[in-house]
Amino acid sequence: MKNKIVRIKDIAEKAKVSTGTVDRVLHKRGRVSKKVEEKVLKIIEEMDYEPNLMARALGSNKIYQIAALIPDHKTDSYWYAPKAGIEKAEKDLKQYGIVVQQYIFNPYDVESFITQANQLTKDNPDGIILSPIFYRETLPFFEKWKAAEIPFVLFNTQIAECEPISYIGQDSYQSGFLAGKLIQYGQPDPCSILIAHIDEEISNAAHLLKKEQGFRNYFAQNNLEHQYKILRIELNRSNPALFITQLDDVIDSTPDISSIFVTTSKAHEIARHLEQRHIKHIKIIGYDLMPANLHFLNKGAISFLINQNPKGQGYWGIYQLTDHLVFKKEVPIIKYLPLDIVTKENMNYYVDDEDTIYLNI
Amino acid sequence: MKNKIVRIKDIAEKAKVSTGTVDRVLHKRGRVSKKVEEKVLKIIEEMDYEPNLMARALGSNKIYQIAALIPDHKTDSYWYAPKAGIEKAEKDLKQYGIVVQQYIFNPYDVESFITQANQLTKDNPDGIILSPIFYRETLPFFEKWKAAEIPFVLFNTQIAECEPISYIGQDSYQSGFLAGKLIQYGQPDPCSILIAHIDEEISNAAHLLKKEQGFRNYFAQNNLEHQYKILRIELNRSNPALFITQLDDVIDSTPDISSIFVTTSKAHEIARHLEQRHIKHIKIIGYDLMPANLHFLNKGAISFLINQNPKGQGYWGIYQLTDHLVFKKEVPIIKYLPLDIVTKENMNYYVDDEDTIYLNI
Repeated sequence: MKNKIVRIKDIAEKAKVSTGTVDRVLHKRGRVSKKVEEKVLKIIEEMDYEPNLMARALGSNKIYQIAALIPDHKTDSYWYAPKAGIEKAEKDLKQYGIVVQQYIFNPYDVESFITQANQLTKDNPDGIILSPIFYRETLPFFEKWKAAEIPFVLFNTQIAECEPISYIGQDSYQSGFLAGKLIQYGQPDPCSILIAHIDEEISNAAHLLKKEQGFRNYFAQNNLEHQYKILRIELNRSNPALFITQLDDVIDSTPDISSIFVTTSKAHEIARHLEQRHIKHIKIIGYDLMPANLHFLNKGAISFLINQNPKGQGYWGIYQLTDHLVFKKEVPIIKYLPLDIVTKENMNYYVDDEDTIYLNI
Repeated sequence: MKNKIVRIKDIAEKAKVSTGTVDRVLHKRGRVSKKVEEKVLKIIEEMDYEPNLMARALGSNKIYQIAALIPDHKTDSYWYAPKAGIEKAEKDLKQYGIVVQQYIFNPYDVESFITQANQLTKDNPDGIILSPIFYRETLPFFEKWKAAEIPFVLFNTQIAECEPISYIGQDSYQSGFLAGKLIQYGQPDPCSILIAHIDEEISNAAHLLKKEQGFRNYFAQNNLEHQYKILRIELNRSNPALFITQLDDVIDSTPDISSIFVTTSKAHEIARHLEQRHIKHIKIIGYDLMPANLHFLNKGAISFLINQNPKGQGYWGIYQLTDHLVFKKEVPIIKYLPLDIVTKENMNYYVDDEDTIYLNI
């Protein structure tokens, strides 16, 4: 077996100089004659030496302050996962000088978002990660950060035109398309299908419109429109009585509804209501491995959950910023995370398995 | 924002000694008075300093020779992926002194396996990774390696009683159970379902029996046995005429077969034959994202593939050995990889996406 590793020591021996000299050449720290430098560089090339970026960063003392502008998980538990992912990445990357400051806002209160975004901007961080859930209100901040030359990464919600260094999340269109396949595969016979948007102001939430479009296009592209009638509904839990009335109305007036596609993480709300009404024949497909959803997945009331990997979104966001700031690497403009199909039978692999949630860089 | 990172420099300053002294204490390299050592260790504890294992390994010059005993991908292309995973891990871990030597055998020739295993044993590596596809013939080698105190890791096929330091692969039982769910979800009405084992000597292939058992138990545990009749067949492509006759016999004699569950990576063989016969109503579920399978997944002839992540198996095997040999970490005895459900609509996320295939450590 051959040792394929080239070390600074090997280069120094071959060049007949000290390892310190090789190190000075590699880091361009001067005090090396032009002649020696050329000789060392030639040997480095000959021996195919790959300077180790990680080892180099470990030796640096620079601190990078990253700001995370994220919704409060105490208001909507979906946001617990990205926060945990951000904190895990911070821990992993601490050794390279990464420090994250969190700015938490209420996802149902635009003013709270603006206050936190203003504070963040004042603190002038080295990089920003955020989920721009308020489309209109976020736009002016993008302009400020661009003017201040602060790189930012988006997760969960994509706003391509604001030019982030990267977006990490799901391909919403394709994810709706996949949901169409899963519903149609389980319902070979003609029937009605309901798309339910829950708890979102649709006109300000671009990703939900894309999901609906992908879902509808699955049926259109596979020439299945004559077999399936697709209905849609917008529900909001802020008025629980209205929520139930609206849901009951559509279910009772359309007896052949076989499946409901819930475009947000609130599939458990539909499952709970159907359970209370003892309705068992309607299949549900939704998003996200939150405890309430997993409860109904486990009971068989929800057939499939598509995993948006919110923990991975936060984790990867910090990694992308680190690649950009610390390692000066080029970062992909879009990083779509896999559309994991989760059932009762494979859910354990996607819940709380750190290896699964944090994909490798 | 607070700098949460404790560096050797900080410890040295607080202890009023040089960084060299701190380094000598950390690496137990002597030449430090007992009194100074105690003082430094106390400050290290107070400041909650975490010595960086990676940084420490980077400074070592030790080479670890790992032997990979793997089937020849030119004989069965399934084995290309684990080989690629092993090579990717070797490249990533080169900097820590990991060197991998491959011992390639013919998966259809026991003698070739024994020859390579003997050669490997003679070479006395620091660690071994293998897929023990020949159960009986591998047992004596486990004894030899244990006597020589060489740690070994298994992938793809689990043999718990041989006491490897780790097994990396799929939970075969659960994977069959999941296949049962996917087939039943798509076939609400009573029908016959065929389990097809292709190209394996079943009695010597424990993982296929476990898959079948999991599949059957899905129906038993959900009280669905009265609705579905489950048939089984063992096919072998070494005699192509017989392969087709046997397959046609079971299809023609059981007109209500709605689905075929192929327990190996050979679902494409069934798909191809059904296509030639213009049979479109039979749904197929199989394993592995090989080009031939993806071709039929894309055409809609295969409904689902369960990804066994063979590339990740090889990759993780080398990582487990590295954790054991280089970082002296405790390694989990079993590392089950996720049961990824792959359809035409989400396949792109699982094919050739390095981030997806190589889960993070």
